[in-house]
Amino acid sequence: MLKYELIANQIESYIETNKLQQGEKLPVLQDLIKTYEVSKSTIVKSLDLLEKKGVIFQVRGSGIFVRRHKRKGYISLFSNQGFKKDLDNFQITSKVLDLQIIKPTDSIMENLNIEDNTDVYYVKRIRYINDQTLCLEESYYNKDIVTYLNKEIVTESIFQYIEQALGLKIGFSDVFIRAEKLKELEADYLGLHKGDPTLYMEQVFHLSNGQPFDYSKLTYNYIQSQFFHQTSSLI
Amino acid sequence: MLKYELIANQIESYIETNKLQQGEKLPVLQDLIKTYEVSKSTIVKSLDLLEKKGVIFQVRGSGIFVRRHKRKGYISLFSNQGFKKDLDNFQITSKVLDLQIIKPTDSIMENLNIEDNTDVYYVKRIRYINDQTLCLEESYYNKDIVTYLNKEIVTESIFQYIEQALGLKIGFSDVFIRAEKLKELEADYLGLHKGDPTLYMEQVFHLSNGQPFDYSKLTYNYIQSQFFHQTSSLI
Repeated sequence: MLKYELIANQIESYIETNKLQQGEKLPVLQDLIKTYEVSKSTIVKSLDLLEKKGVIFQVRGSGIFVRRHKRKGYISLFSNQGFKKDLDNFQITSKVLDLQIIKPTDSIMENLNIEDNTDVYYVKRIRYINDQTLCLEESYYNKDIVTYLNKEIVTESIFQYIEQALGLKIGFSDVFIRAEKLKELEADYLGLHKGDPTLYMEQVFHLSNGQPFDYSKLTYNYIQSQFFHQTSSLI
Repeated sequence: MLKYELIANQIESYIETNKLQQGEKLPVLQDLIKTYEVSKSTIVKSLDLLEKKGVIFQVRGSGIFVRRHKRKGYISLFSNQGFKKDLDNFQITSKVLDLQIIKPTDSIMENLNIEDNTDVYYVKRIRYINDQTLCLEESYYNKDIVTYLNKEIVTESIFQYIEQALGLKIGFSDVFIRAEKLKELEADYLGLHKGDPTLYMEQVFHLSNGQPFDYSKLTYNYIQSQFFHQTSSLI
């Protein structure tokens, strides 16, 4: 992690720990430079990053202000780290329904950019939030990249394992979202009824070198899952 | 618009016009500097912006690559400019169902950060995409900021009017998303059935000075609306 990213994280933690509210003013630039003992150019980069993340907004000639929505229980819509990172206040657990090595279908080949002879880890899990069903998750991992998985690993955070044990650098993702009707089997898993609404999400995760390694399909329990996202005017 | 933003837009247009595909390599830095006749620091800022927007990814020592998903008909999930900007390939039209000045409810007061004596423009529209219903939209504008609206204006792009005619600078937004069941009236408007799924979105738009000016509730036709978002590893 670079210096300015570290400082950005510290400022974000400060906002959370002190429960600062939307519109509250942060100290002026000079004070931040002193507090964090960094150069002006570093603090400017940190603030720029926080603004792009939707954590603060800066008004020229007026100051630096906090952005925090008031709604409780909403899940951050995007996270390259899966849920674990964003949901510190929630208890996320998983039940593994299936784990096996398969050959890819056309859709998997297309999304993972692989040929039909590439092995793929198929992982099917139910994820729980505070003991309620959050979503049914089916994931396909390119086995040439994610070389080993077992039941113990997939019960916990797979991404943490990929980064820490396999030493891979996770980059960006493409996300696709729509509302759908639940099919009978999905409804059973989630404890809902056939035809109930679901927020259905597909995500293709790439390494930082651009290689797709994980194609996931998430079928959310509409009662448990509400999402938020803070856009930035900078991007 | 700043120089580096202008160049970023030009590079993005170049990618779209030439239909470059995911993973295609862009010219090296030196060539981009020559092509766009700018300094190295400007082009670096342009590329940084494009990476954060999810348009490209950069691999150190390897090059600059295009990000473009292959799926047709998906709508960009976030846009501070409403649909108009992102949906050049789609025909978006509106039918105005209601336009009046009202006093705010508690929920409107909270989201627009106003008192109960502030007037609010209430706008209810059906939006169509290629002549199919896309969503039912109910918007509340703080009349102290958006001082005037009429039927002609709200039939077109309200945001374009706000920026160009009123001269206001639109900043960021907070977005809330969940799946829900359609109520009877909403279903009627969308040409669907009561109980059908909907992607329901609330958005609070702020001026660049942080003032919320527009609180909108969007009820999407689940058959017509699929969304995508390209995350960046940089934010």
